[in-house]
Amino acid sequence: MNENMNEKFEKLQPYLDRSVALGCALTLFNWDGETLAPRGAFEKTSKLIGALSAEYYRAVINDEVRSLLGELSAPKEQEKLTALQRAIVKKLLRQYEELEKIPPEEYQAYQELLSLSGQIWAEAKENNDFAAFAPTLKKIVSWQKRFAEYTKKPGMSLYDVMLDQHEEGILTAQLDEFFGKLRSAVVPLLKKVTAQNSRIDKSYNSRSYPVEKQREFCRFLAEYIGFDFERGIVAESAHPFTTNLHNADVRITNHFYENNLESAIFSVIHEGGHALYEFGVDDELTLTPVGGGTSMGVHESQSRFYENVLGRSEAFWKPLFAKLKETWPDQLADIELSDFILGINKAEPGSIRTEADELTYPLHIMIRYEIEKQLISGEIEVDDLPEIWNEKYREYLGITPENDKEGVLQDVHWSTGSFGYFPSYAIGNAVAAQIYAFMHREIPVAECLEKSDLAPIREYLRKHIHRHGCTKNMNELLTEMTGEQLNADYYIDYLTQKYTGLYLSRQ
Amino acid sequence: MNENMNEKFEKLQPYLDRSVALGCALTLFNWDGETLAPRGAFEKTSKLIGALSAEYYRAVINDEVRSLLGELSAPKEQEKLTALQRAIVKKLLRQYEELEKIPPEEYQAYQELLSLSGQIWAEAKENNDFAAFAPTLKKIVSWQKRFAEYTKKPGMSLYDVMLDQHEEGILTAQLDEFFGKLRSAVVPLLKKVTAQNSRIDKSYNSRSYPVEKQREFCRFLAEYIGFDFERGIVAESAHPFTTNLHNADVRITNHFYENNLESAIFSVIHEGGHALYEFGVDDELTLTPVGGGTSMGVHESQSRFYENVLGRSEAFWKPLFAKLKETWPDQLADIELSDFILGINKAEPGSIRTEADELTYPLHIMIRYEIEKQLISGEIEVDDLPEIWNEKYREYLGITPENDKEGVLQDVHWSTGSFGYFPSYAIGNAVAAQIYAFMHREIPVAECLEKSDLAPIREYLRKHIHRHGCTKNMNELLTEMTGEQLNADYYIDYLTQKYTGLYLSRQ
Repeated sequence: MNENMNEKFEKLQPYLDRSVALGCALTLFNWDGETLAPRGAFEKTSKLIGALSAEYYRAVINDEVRSLLGELSAPKEQEKLTALQRAIVKKLLRQYEELEKIPPEEYQAYQELLSLSGQIWAEAKENNDFAAFAPTLKKIVSWQKRFAEYTKKPGMSLYDVMLDQHEEGILTAQLDEFFGKLRSAVVPLLKKVTAQNSRIDKSYNSRSYPVEKQREFCRFLAEYIGFDFERGIVAESAHPFTTNLHNADVRITNHFYENNLESAIFSVIHEGGHALYEFGVDDELTLTPVGGGTSMGVHESQSRFYENVLGRSEAFWKPLFAKLKETWPDQLADIELSDFILGINKAEPGSIRTEADELTYPLHIMIRYEIEKQLISGEIEVDDLPEIWNEKYREYLGITPENDKEGVLQDVHWSTGSFGYFPSYAIGNAVAAQIYAFMHREIPVAECLEKSDLAPIREYLRKHIHRHGCTKNMNELLTEMTGEQLNADYYIDYLTQKYTGLYLSRQ
Repeated sequence: MNENMNEKFEKLQPYLDRSVALGCALTLFNWDGETLAPRGAFEKTSKLIGALSAEYYRAVINDEVRSLLGELSAPKEQEKLTALQRAIVKKLLRQYEELEKIPPEEYQAYQELLSLSGQIWAEAKENNDFAAFAPTLKKIVSWQKRFAEYTKKPGMSLYDVMLDQHEEGILTAQLDEFFGKLRSAVVPLLKKVTAQNSRIDKSYNSRSYPVEKQREFCRFLAEYIGFDFERGIVAESAHPFTTNLHNADVRITNHFYENNLESAIFSVIHEGGHALYEFGVDDELTLTPVGGGTSMGVHESQSRFYENVLGRSEAFWKPLFAKLKETWPDQLADIELSDFILGINKAEPGSIRTEADELTYPLHIMIRYEIEKQLISGEIEVDDLPEIWNEKYREYLGITPENDKEGVLQDVHWSTGSFGYFPSYAIGNAVAAQIYAFMHREIPVAECLEKSDLAPIREYLRKHIHRHGCTKNMNELLTEMTGEQLNADYYIDYLTQKYTGLYLSRQ
């Protein structure tokens, strides 16, 4: 595969190929389970997933890989490697050190549990029945804590371990500061902004938008932002998500509600942003252990950059608004572009994270972050979650969710064992704002959008982020692009400017 | 898993679990490639499939499995095993002996080729360009011959090896006799029958049947014959097929043409028949190496039993015809049940196998059988195929295909390396007829159909065939059910009676 083939690295290659192939097989099972598999299949299929996870474990964790990684990490050997090979060794070593501490039978049992838990959560949510999910969630939390205990480094809390898995090096101390800063900026801004809300009528959004037309329009949007249908597909699932096997097989899903115009539109732009990241990974990297996006935070920066920074801007909709109105002439007859822009940016406390505007969004994340910290530290228990959830919503957003379906059961993440994931969304927003501040200096972003020419934007992101896969972490990417590490000020400035401009300067 | 756990068998269990899981992963990749994967993905995905195939190979072929199988085959150990365990050991041994003779790197290279060849064939067919497929087909033929050479037993031809893989023990000598008998019965019958064809007007079939209604009606039909949507799904693909992960995840596909009412209807009944087989496998067997249908021939017996023996009978349509007419009141306004039954059974030479009636169908199979024999023996070459194909069609059916798309490129099988598969269709028809002859004695088949109560038929097939998975081969199943091995006479009687009844006795 690589011209500059080092003999020791060559010995590692079969293990890389196996682990990548098994990883992709697990990805495909996951995709299939979310989109297509019959409901009655899960129990038996979970056995298959357990066995494949065990195979994956064996492909990565074994004496030969351990000894090869040891040799390849030595400074003398490192010199002989290409940059890509060094990145692969580094990544694999990190993964090895985490995984080897987990006994294989525990790893397999946990993967089997996870392959069932999504279904259990979905049914509990459907039936608004937290108690039906609680026993499974308790098991997941207990496994998560056990695994974190195995891999914990000195000075880290268990929750730090989970955070570190999602965003290398971004732990509780830094996040506490990040969210603290954010909260003191967002809360007063939100108060000022929502005082003006009576001006904004977005009742158009819940008129009837037949699903077939939504499907068509969303397909058009995906293509418009650069989704490559030759190398990707769009399907449907309860909760939109993105996954990929490699850079020539990238998959997003969407969902459609007849009485909600925005939901599918911004979901497809969001998932499309994730997809562009994976499409943009260099050919040399795809199908290697460093072939995917570098972290959840950077991934979310791309999806939210497309969804919010671009997708909720006036410049984005200027060339598209006529088409939108053509698609639904009756429903949007009385709506002007300026109404639409205000509508899609209306800031309003609500109980559902995925439907939140940009301003309340970080508050939803802070709630989850606080709850996860307490849950993992043992301060609170799984059974306390519904009550604490609702309390926090009253405290942060001034509302009480109507029920657990719209409260503690709303998100899939905990059912997949993804503790420490939620902060990625806020980090992603912050990274998006930081990137945007610098992108401006090289590209006339608004002009590109108004000309329907998104290629320069896509190419800029590809050059600075996408193509590198996970050979560089978030702070390395940001430092190279912007000269500094993650800095919440850009995010605060972005929100302040945007909402001041939209709501307050036009009074 | 099993109460009666033998210590040696227990040591085999992890290898069984791994091979089943990897086999299912490959099945899922195959399903995904046929139904959903983006066109641009194949090249990279083929690498994954190659690596997974290599994993599969390693899970089955290794020193420990070899030595365990050796020990477990000894008569003393056999006594200690349950019937299921003995069946698993027997099946695995057969697989082991075949696979171990193929060098692993050749196995992987061949699997990678196959994961690409489907796409190459599909494009060649689309473009009516045999030359674009020929180089790939040459490679496939050459690998197939090479592998057959490795595993050939004394007295077998290379083609015998391929036949034996699809239907244990049914080799050229027996098939020559089978087809010879069939040909001398079918050819004169067809001549008599087609002389009456001017009586039958099936122009209704090519009226306009909007696809959405077809989808609905076919979903209804699937459910009607017993397809369990809790444990199965129906999707779409260019060529309908059935696959499954286990007995709680069974998948069929269909295709729809606006100007062809029959195609989708009989495809869904056909694939539904395959699906019922896999749904019916015992829980104890599924997810083991003996968990699938026993052979292609027996599988086709089930699909063609539903499609033809049941699905093209008057009794089947009696309770359904009103619904069919309700679905398409304009298109079928002038059509009576008796017209429809004659229409769906009209015997007429044509160039496309999958659209052939029951009477010309075996002739399509004979053509492929003759060609495969000659191709594998080296009598003819890949480049000769289009010409020889057309010659045989003139000889057997009196027609010349319009082009290679409707000729030698029509079937997917060779692109998947499935030489020796086609005879299974004819064997399947014969098995279906033989089963039908005996089923009658226990179940009032026509009465069940007229009452829309298909459960007794399904249960009969489940009891005698489905539940056994591949613990018994075709002739064992037939002998237990009918007291004799495969006997072409039942098939000839069935065709003669059916077509005499339909065409000749009503004159």
